Amino acid sequence: MHITGHMIIGQSTVLGTAGVVHAINPAQNAVMTPDFGLATVAEVERACALAEAAFDTYRETTLEQRALFLEAIATNILDIGSALIERATQETGLPVARLEGERGRTVGQLRLFAKVVRDGRWMTATLDSALPERAPPRPDLRLRKIALGPVAVFGASNFPLAFSVAGGDTASALAAGCPVIVKAHSAHLGTSELVGKAIQKAVADCGMPEGVFSMLIGDGRQIGQSLVSHPAIKAVGFTGSRQGGLALVRTAAQRHEPIPVYAEMSSINPVFLLPQALAANAATLAQGFVDSLTLGAGQFCTNPGLVIALDGPHLQQFMDAASTALKAKAASTMLTPGIHKAYNAGVDSLSKIAGVTLLAQGLTSDGGCAAQAALAVCDGATFLTTPALQDENFGPSSLIIRCSDEAQMQRLAGFVEGQLTITVHAVAADRALAAKLLPTLERKAGRILFNGFPTGVEVAHAMVHGGPFPSTSDSRSTSVGASAIDRFTRPVCYQAMPADLLPAALKDENPFHLARIVDGELVMPK
Amino acid sequence: MHITGHMIIGQSTVLGTAGVVHAINPAQNAVMTPDFGLATVAEVERACALAEAAFDTYRETTLEQRALFLEAIATNILDIGSALIERATQETGLPVARLEGERGRTVGQLRLFAKVVRDGRWMTATLDSALPERAPPRPDLRLRKIALGPVAVFGASNFPLAFSVAGGDTASALAAGCPVIVKAHSAHLGTSELVGKAIQKAVADCGMPEGVFSMLIGDGRQIGQSLVSHPAIKAVGFTGSRQGGLALVRTAAQRHEPIPVYAEMSSINPVFLLPQALAANAATLAQGFVDSLTLGAGQFCTNPGLVIALDGPHLQQFMDAASTALKAKAASTMLTPGIHKAYNAGVDSLSKIAGVTLLAQGLTSDGGCAAQAALAVCDGATFLTTPALQDENFGPSSLIIRCSDEAQMQRLAGFVEGQLTITVHAVAADRALAAKLLPTLERKAGRILFNGFPTGVEVAHAMVHGGPFPSTSDSRSTSVGASAIDRFTRPVCYQAMPADLLPAALKDENPFHLARIVDGELVMPK
Repeated sequence: MHITGHMIIGQSTVLGTAGVVHAINPAQNAVMTPDFGLATVAEVERACALAEAAFDTYRETTLEQRALFLEAIATNILDIGSALIERATQETGLPVARLEGERGRTVGQLRLFAKVVRDGRWMTATLDSALPERAPPRPDLRLRKIALGPVAVFGASNFPLAFSVAGGDTASALAAGCPVIVKAHSAHLGTSELVGKAIQKAVADCGMPEGVFSMLIGDGRQIGQSLVSHPAIKAVGFTGSRQGGLALVRTAAQRHEPIPVYAEMSSINPVFLLPQALAANAATLAQGFVDSLTLGAGQFCTNPGLVIALDGPHLQQFMDAASTALKAKAASTMLTPGIHKAYNAGVDSLSKIAGVTLLAQGLTSDGGCAAQAALAVCDGATFLTTPALQDENFGPSSLIIRCSDEAQMQRLAGFVEGQLTITVHAVAADRALAAKLLPTLERKAGRILFNGFPTGVEVAHAMVHGGPFPSTSDSRSTSVGASAIDRFTRPVCYQAMPADLLPAALKDENPFHLARIVDGELVMPK
Repeated sequence: MHITGHMIIGQSTVLGTAGVVHAINPAQNAVMTPDFGLATVAEVERACALAEAAFDTYRETTLEQRALFLEAIATNILDIGSALIERATQETGLPVARLEGERGRTVGQLRLFAKVVRDGRWMTATLDSALPERAPPRPDLRLRKIALGPVAVFGASNFPLAFSVAGGDTASALAAGCPVIVKAHSAHLGTSELVGKAIQKAVADCGMPEGVFSMLIGDGRQIGQSLVSHPAIKAVGFTGSRQGGLALVRTAAQRHEPIPVYAEMSSINPVFLLPQALAANAATLAQGFVDSLTLGAGQFCTNPGLVIALDGPHLQQFMDAASTALKAKAASTMLTPGIHKAYNAGVDSLSKIAGVTLLAQGLTSDGGCAAQAALAVCDGATFLTTPALQDENFGPSSLIIRCSDEAQMQRLAGFVEGQLTITVHAVAADRALAAKLLPTLERKAGRILFNGFPTGVEVAHAMVHGGPFPSTSDSRSTSVGASAIDRFTRPVCYQAMPADLLPAALKDENPFHLARIVDGELVMPK
């Protein structure tokens, strides 16, 4: 498929006229063809008007129609073939195998949401019978969840497929019945265009109203802010920096009608090494940790940026083994020159903080935007008095905290900011300490994992990729997994509604075969 | 039970020292005894510290323990006996029968949430099995929802029992496992004290940690803002004015860690009279409308403040009948002198707006804060060009819009702001028009009701008392009905967690006998 630099506005392709931007090959630090045209406010208006016009039709497509549409997007993405992987690897520096895996994840995600749509549990269909004999009489009441409205999606730099144009936010919003307008991420413009066209084709193939999907190209924040300010937009999905996420939160709050923003922002993903686990497995833990830290040049939201353990010989053994492993790690290309520069500045700042010692660094490289991994250490008191040590440095850098005792470890657990994940390494003999830490960890993170490492986020029904501020702007939700759909819905109650006007999910005959809550009890479909 | 003017801080009673405030008898416009002491920031601190300390213990009480606690509160409220009704009628001017009904509703609500807690569906327990053979292996993943943290509750002026100290927000937050700090509403301080003590006693009777409940007395907004700013507070429930709700939303957004605010604010609850229904039943509809409008001196969030119908002889017939009915309605006492004054000013402003005609007024009264009902009319064009006509005037005042045609009616449906309710009166011959309006109405309201009037909000599983801005600050939720509990929870995923550490809801043996989602399928308990 030919990449042209056009935006996608419904069924049209439009070359933006507000300027030109280019994709960058970060391995070569080189500009790529073609020119991508930047959107004017007119394109934002047009995309929003189409989305608004499509909304009522789209949200009332049947569950089966919407599921087929999501599956058609998945098929169309696969149909792009190797051209997609080639372009993505050029634009991001990510290896082919990783991108093939990510494509599988993206397609799997779309298919999971097809299942979620068909299952229909997301509507939480609820029926309370009329009680005409009661004084006062109770009317017939029925509740379903409906789509919020058109959603603006801001893809991530680090997942050009799975958290981008057809990624988790788009899939879950489309599943809920919301039209989607994506702002393409500048880190992978050509990849975005290819995927955007796959969605555009699915819209046509499935006979959906054209406004169901548009994709804009914008420079800096202006187009994004225009989009989030637009009255037609009713929710926002974002994955990126804290600064970027908070800017969208502010814009959304200042609207005449404030709207929810689901921003997945920053997390340093503490890893607690409990004493007996550390004593038993210091070297193995060190290798697993360094592998997780350096995976994908450390460019994961769930990268383990903090290790918390009791000081002593076993921690020393861990640090020695981790240092050795890290020093052997090759530098790998980061996604963009900007990310690479920020990462180096972050390591530099970290090493200059009083009380922090740089323990080891990975191999260097002459090539483009390659990141040298870094591992530092400080004591608990330093961490507790230095807020800057909680700042995420996006990339393969981590900080080990030597705790003086269990009480300090507990204090640290209470001191860390909200996180996407917290990991606990514990053997049976650590169970009492783990149990003591657990209530604090539950308050701090969306996912608590045992004896593993946080990178690798399953797309599953029980996944939570979310967590308390600042890891996200809304801890009540997840951006990965089946329940991501809940972000884009709101409940509506129908009182004494004539049977012929009732939505299908709530009709007596239950045409969607939903499990429903009837007079307070869960009733399985016949 | 003796009313002392004290606040409730955990198991202590504290007389505030920041000043004195009094309850007012609005029927007599007279100050009541005793003096109520106002909180200093020290009391806010103390209540928050206790709530914070209670949280982890309280949220992990068993479902049965928490259900019994809610039921104990209900019993203790009933045990206050007639003293509660007497004080409430003096403080609010509401009739005894209404308050007895409201007490029944309050107690019923607490018992409903006891059932909701026991049912455990609110946790959405979800289990994904480990797939060790898969490449890469999938870990065991389990999700449950946990309580958000301590919640600040701001009760309503107009429901001294059902939306106040032990009202819907408190009941649903306690059900979720959140400690609650209530700011008592100045419109019913003695009533609040009596109910607060009933909760305090239930806390002791049930062996709950004392910080589970506190009740503060504050003047103006200062104590409320301190409470919402406090780091221990993780969510806010509010029922009241748009101005008051938005002030809390702003404060919550400016915190280091922003928190959700569920503010139920203002709604004018449009009533659409479709042509054939109007032709068939003009007089009956008029009587039903005027009864709903003037119920409780019009002091309901769901009061029908807007009537939309096609102009013509049938509407004229409706207006004549409504005018006649209204003119016979006695003035009834409003809740506070402030509300009464604002209502009169609202009617005065309305009648001065160009294009608006005051159609009829109810009877006057010499007594205290009695409200004279008011009915006005304007045409569709006036409404579409006069934003002020969408402002809620809390009390028995309503505006009829004469539409030139169906197209204008449809335009009006799209023009009104977000609402708690929209009502449609339609007979079979109106069904096509109703179906055409419906998608727009769904976008605008949390509850759509047919051939009834919006006052009267059932406490049920399928109820939605919520809606798009500005009716609430968060359309994704309801403040009445079983799903109100969802406002105070967030999901946590446990990955590869050792069996002995798993929370009961997620253990293999399913000790709570929950319906759970296992590998994507809903599985009923054995």
